[in-house]
Amino acid sequence: MQNCRTQVNIPMKWVGPIKIVGELNAEVNVPMATFETPLWPSTNRGAKVSRLTGGIAVTLLSENMTRSIVLQAPNAAYAKHVTQTLRADHQSALAEVVARTSRFATLDSWHEQVVGRLLYLRFAVKTGDASGHNMTTKAADALIDWILAHYPELQYVSISANLCMDKKASAINGILGRGKSVVAEIVIPRDVCAHDLRTTPEKVVDLHLKKNLLGSILAGGIRSANAHFANMLLAVYLATGQDAANIIEGSQGIVHAEVMNTDLYFSVTLPNVIVGTVGNGKHLPFVQENLRRLACDRIDVPPGDNSRRLALIVAATVLCGELSLLAAQTNRGELTDSHMRLERLHHKKSLEAAC
Amino acid sequence: MQNCRTQVNIPMKWVGPIKIVGELNAEVNVPMATFETPLWPSTNRGAKVSRLTGGIAVTLLSENMTRSIVLQAPNAAYAKHVTQTLRADHQSALAEVVARTSRFATLDSWHEQVVGRLLYLRFAVKTGDASGHNMTTKAADALIDWILAHYPELQYVSISANLCMDKKASAINGILGRGKSVVAEIVIPRDVCAHDLRTTPEKVVDLHLKKNLLGSILAGGIRSANAHFANMLLAVYLATGQDAANIIEGSQGIVHAEVMNTDLYFSVTLPNVIVGTVGNGKHLPFVQENLRRLACDRIDVPPGDNSRRLALIVAATVLCGELSLLAAQTNRGELTDSHMRLERLHHKKSLEAAC
Amino acid sequence: MQNCRTQVNIPMKWVGPIKIVGELNAEVNVPMATFETPLWPSTNRGAKVSRLTGGIAVTLLSENMTRSIVLQAPNAAYAKHVTQTLRADHQSALAEVVARTSRFATLDSWHEQVVGRLLYLRFAVKTGDASGHNMTTKAADALIDWILAHYPELQYVSISANLCMDKKASAINGILGRGKSVVAEIVIPRDVCAHDLRTTPEKVVDLHLKKNLLGSILAGGIRSANAHFANMLLAVYLATGQDAANIIEGSQGIVHAEVMNTDLYFSVTLPNVIVGTVGNGKHLPFVQENLRRLACDRIDVPPGDNSRRLALIVAATVLCGELSLLAAQTNRGELTDSHMRLERLHHKKSLEAAC
Amino acid sequence: MQNCRTQVNIPMKWVGPIKIVGELNAEVNVPMATFETPLWPSTNRGAKVSRLTGGIAVTLLSENMTRSIVLQAPNAAYAKHVTQTLRADHQSALAEVVARTSRFATLDSWHEQVVGRLLYLRFAVKTGDASGHNMTTKAADALIDWILAHYPELQYVSISANLCMDKKASAINGILGRGKSVVAEIVIPRDVCAHDLRTTPEKVVDLHLKKNLLGSILAGGIRSANAHFANMLLAVYLATGQDAANIIEGSQGIVHAEVMNTDLYFSVTLPNVIVGTVGNGKHLPFVQENLRRLACDRIDVPPGDNSRRLALIVAATVLCGELSLLAAQTNRGELTDSHMRLERLHHKKSLEAAC
Repeated sequence: MQNCRTQVNIPMKWVGPIKIVGELNAEVNVPMATFETPLWPSTNRGAKVSRLTGGIAVTLLSENMTRSIVLQAPNAAYAKHVTQTLRADHQSALAEVVARTSRFATLDSWHEQVVGRLLYLRFAVKTGDASGHNMTTKAADALIDWILAHYPELQYVSISANLCMDKKASAINGILGRGKSVVAEIVIPRDVCAHDLRTTPEKVVDLHLKKNLLGSILAGGIRSANAHFANMLLAVYLATGQDAANIIEGSQGIVHAEVMNTDLYFSVTLPNVIVGTVGNGKHLPFVQENLRRLACDRIDVPPGDNSRRLALIVAATVLCGELSLLAAQTNRGELTDSHMRLERLHHKKSLEAAC
Repeated sequence: MQNCRTQVNIPMKWVGPIKIVGELNAEVNVPMATFETPLWPSTNRGAKVSRLTGGIAVTLLSENMTRSIVLQAPNAAYAKHVTQTLRADHQSALAEVVARTSRFATLDSWHEQVVGRLLYLRFAVKTGDASGHNMTTKAADALIDWILAHYPELQYVSISANLCMDKKASAINGILGRGKSVVAEIVIPRDVCAHDLRTTPEKVVDLHLKKNLLGSILAGGIRSANAHFANMLLAVYLATGQDAANIIEGSQGIVHAEVMNTDLYFSVTLPNVIVGTVGNGKHLPFVQENLRRLACDRIDVPPGDNSRRLALIVAATVLCGELSLLAAQTNRGELTDSHMRLERLHHKKSLEAAC
Repeated sequence: MQNCRTQVNIPMKWVGPIKIVGELNAEVNVPMATFETPLWPSTNRGAKVSRLTGGIAVTLLSENMTRSIVLQAPNAAYAKHVTQTLRADHQSALAEVVARTSRFATLDSWHEQVVGRLLYLRFAVKTGDASGHNMTTKAADALIDWILAHYPELQYVSISANLCMDKKASAINGILGRGKSVVAEIVIPRDVCAHDLRTTPEKVVDLHLKKNLLGSILAGGIRSANAHFANMLLAVYLATGQDAANIIEGSQGIVHAEVMNTDLYFSVTLPNVIVGTVGNGKHLPFVQENLRRLACDRIDVPPGDNSRRLALIVAATVLCGELSLLAAQTNRGELTDSHMRLERLHHKKSLEAAC
Repeated sequence: MQNCRTQVNIPMKWVGPIKIVGELNAEVNVPMATFETPLWPSTNRGAKVSRLTGGIAVTLLSENMTRSIVLQAPNAAYAKHVTQTLRADHQSALAEVVARTSRFATLDSWHEQVVGRLLYLRFAVKTGDASGHNMTTKAADALIDWILAHYPELQYVSISANLCMDKKASAINGILGRGKSVVAEIVIPRDVCAHDLRTTPEKVVDLHLKKNLLGSILAGGIRSANAHFANMLLAVYLATGQDAANIIEGSQGIVHAEVMNTDLYFSVTLPNVIVGTVGNGKHLPFVQENLRRLACDRIDVPPGDNSRRLALIVAATVLCGELSLLAAQTNRGELTDSHMRLERLHHKKSLEAAC
């Protein structure tokens, strides 16, 4: 027990199996670590729905990790000169600089902004199975060296310029991508809505409109329309050794739901799922065990396949939890009742479980 | 080991002591749970600076928990009628409704928005030592009952309308407050900057301008200007049994730094510190132990004092970590070097620590 | 012709009549000045729809003009002291200070934010029939004098602190209001949709969802969901002598549309209609003539009634133009065809009209 | 007078000359049409400063016009297939489609976002001397035809999807550009600051920090940090026949100021200057006269040169007005006093000037 003082013990349960189709075909159980124990049965309800339908179709749109730097030019004209010549003449040189920093790092693209005489460069790097924060920082460091050597009138300002944008709410990560951009979709027959979610397609669509879309806009929300993506992301991130502060950009995802014929089309789009299967935290025994049970530790697959699999699983899990909560909120009183009841129930159990 | 399968074990260390003054006068050690082990020495460097100066002055500006509901009127004119008569005639009635739901709940104020025929009401409730999500939801549920009974033309839409705004990035929580709004400030003599942070006041202010302010604005950031508040928040939240998904609004804080005479004035303003010392997660043994060591489990103090103390400690901890990272980034190469070195070091140690 | 060099001549037409009900009952013709001549027939189509239905119901939710100041305290604790004592002890004193600056100015409320040791105060003032920028600035100036005299440790920083927020995109004006907050609503029978807008309620609702709501969110939009409120606002503002740069906050309005039974419920909510019937620009002959024809120059009504009437008319006009454009965009090719055709037509006419 | 009923007459004055250097070398007088007459002397003060220094250096970073469309796929996998094959196989085909719609239109690039099964494509088109709204809409119309013909499973949703983003506040236009992206910079010697702006470099930088940067962030501002870009933009847009509703994205620009040695470095960055010298409104006699005096009607220059020249002039004008207002606000009382005095003065004159 003495060594428990060097760690915290967060309750964990496996939910599922979730029936996933599309770019991943499997029924998957998913570990979720949380103090908010009603999250387990809620996500489980969504998982059950996945099994009663054709499953949750997952699609990976893009992937990379980003780091932005800022340099200072003597004036805007010089900053423009740098941006133009980097693109025209030095793309392969920059790619080589990145490649030399890690065998897994590949320069994907970059985005630039000039404000006054300041030059902001946001590099997007492919990082294999790592979430890639450190790999990309190391690459950015090397890129700074190269750029300052070739443009001596530039001055270093910062290795990180908040255009990355790491763990802060912004629009840029949704627009340009950071981490893995994933869509998860499901079509839920009307009778499954009625029987297993105690709602109708029309009610879910209406609630989504007035809460996720209009409510978020009224709140001054930024590139986000969902009820609680953050909860599922946090729980899976903690259970798989991710840097959970990345739930901030992760939470900026978007639900899109429609009545399709008489059924419910329901989707979650997550532009910023930031997960890795190697790197910080991944060597902890519980993480290794969890990744193994998720089949995200395969050694016979190309680099990146394990983390892509994990990102797809994360998106499907988010769909399960989001769907379940929205369905509950369509019914007056259901949320409070079930939440209170489940909390009392699990509070007792979680006490038993903790060491 | 069998029961370890029902929990995750996140490495934790105590940093500090942090010298805190103002509304809390103490040298405090703070537990931080994280997979990102360089966070410990980095925050510790800030803590050391606090002890070499007059300390970190903390100020609590406001506190409450919020929940928004959405109701549908026949038209905007009726929605207007409801908002007007609620304010003119029913303030004490609503306060009584809230008070009946919990002996700790007090209706503080409410904010309203009408869009078309939809009426959004965002209730702010004082919740004692609880972070108050559930207490406020229960209060909102009762308020819905009362309002629907008194305005029969209204229809229920949702118990949660995303104007709360819970665990999503928005402007409203920064503008109107949610959770505890806290400022932490420090004045750092020039020689301490040089010796202990290896930087100057001018360099920190310049970096803050070009990274936290300009960089965040360029990224389409929303009501936020900091480097990594989220990291410290996550680590302390996990170590004290908080719902860590609230780092999302928590991360939307603002650094303000200036050269003051020749010293550095440095502050962090956190409008959304969401912590409690009772409620979900707080009964876990490690949480109880940590709250006890923080003196946030006192029984001889008025309700709310324990959670206020915790919020002030959180803000001081965020200042320590933010200051240290910014100082490091003023020096080219320092971040990458120290980060890599510390990670190798702590990775080894954290392996030993985990069960 | 010589004196034409001291002015520009923007083509203007009257659209309507628009059938308005609710807080204003009239059929009103509205002047619109614009270089974008297709705006006239487009808005006119909406006006026709208003006459074929029960009319456009208008509701004024609130009104004021705002100006924010920023002062510097020695530290956050002092800033807190100021905010607390202003509210507790000096509300009537501040109201008197404002009242002395103009017989039309009344202090309505204020909002405060503290960041570090900086104190931001955003004053909301009722300003009669003036849009009130200058009246509120004058009031803020006097408030600064009073506050600095009573809190000698505060320092002046700025008479305008961008929290106002004047002519810049932000969330605060939508959340707290600035200018007149107005809703305009209409219920359009299915057959009118088909015959006069060549669309269906379902098509308009679907387009609104995928363009105004989702598209705006994807763009990193801020507290806004509409297609082109700005066009109608600009045209009426120019024709009535308003400071048209206020279309910036004015444009941040929200459409809400639903299929209601089988008809179309369509609404525009404009939290920031900033208009006056006295003040800068209002003494120009064409402005006086236009205000007279709008019945917004009545002398036998309480102060504020003329500008409120104008705000309600503006909202109804915005509804007409927004509805018409959305209806056109539901049909592939219609926008481009009609736009091109109308532009050729009106380009010729506008040439004739200009002096 | 009869024909005055078909137009409005807005007071106009020429300010300057403004000394411009860099990508345009000239002393330029600029026409400004406004009801807010203090804008003229204020901008003129900035123009005078430009002549007392090395001038305002202007740099054009990029230019295009954008239009976004939204199409519906059967599912996200198909939407992904479309985005991938468009990039891999059809770039030149799309470019040809655009080129066929106008001899001035060239497809520059496109940006895509997928949400659920919806596909948003934002096309950037070079449009010669036209601001290009209609040219780009026509190109987008043709692109829709081509895409729907080649991907028969897609359905048309809208020719305009709010990702453009036209005349609404968002982050995307600042991040990706829309219209002309221009920087204007000046270095102002300390003594000119003192004598002609009655301020110091330190005071301007401090005010900018606490008002434009911090104040805008506190207000929930979006990708914007300035005091009143909108005023200058509106005045020049009206005087040169532009669609002035584009001041909305235009206003989302950023000031960057620093003390450089002992002088003031001051810059304005405008990512969205949307101007043309041909197209709607440009055939009006006063517009032609004004464009001629600005030398923006040259026939011996490559297409685009006239509108680029105009954009550079606009940016320099914005700098003059912004600098002057900020300088005034550094002095307590100066803004109110001068504003009131100037308004009384010009109000009288503007009455005389109007027909």
